[in-house]
Amino acid sequence: MPGDKNEIDFDIELDKLAKRIKSLRVAKGYTSYEVFAFENSINRVQYGRYEKGNDLRYTTLLKVIKALDMTPSEFFSEGFD
Amino acid sequence: MPGDKNEIDFDIELDKLAKRIKSLRVAKGYTSYEVFAFENSINRVQYGRYEKGNDLRYTTLLKVIKALDMTPSEFFSEGFD
Repeated sequence: MPGDKNEIDFDIELDKLAKRIKSLRVAKGYTSYEVFAFENSINRVQYGRYEKGNDLRYTTLLKVIKALDMTPSEFFSEGFD
Repeated sequence: MPGDKNEIDFDIELDKLAKRIKSLRVAKGYTSYEVFAFENSINRVQYGRYEKGNDLRYTTLLKVIKALDMTPSEFFSEGFD
């Protein structure tokens, strides 16, 4: 349905999410995503996929946001509009 | 690991999400979640579960947020801290 307001380009949205996660991880001083994931008890292989734009469950995203020491509102305040 | 900073009570977090989705759906004038879901091309049974606190994929959450005519930052600006 062209013009369907629910038409979302998920690739673009997942790319925004990936970029946001990665930039915050680097801003926290972690050059290695694997060290960041390990230190925060997040599966390293899975975490690597999130920074590459894979979809993930809301609860998993909350784990990542928490590991970045942010609240959901802080996390989503930038990079998604 | 007590005190592990990643210790998140997912039930509480999913309940916050469910309440936020439902309150915004009602605020848009939809007394029936089924009509809201149908009009926004979202599976009605699945949508009902999101308002009851089921976990969901990020891309699915984006569909709900879009159906509520909000951006992610607007959606997460309230109800999650």
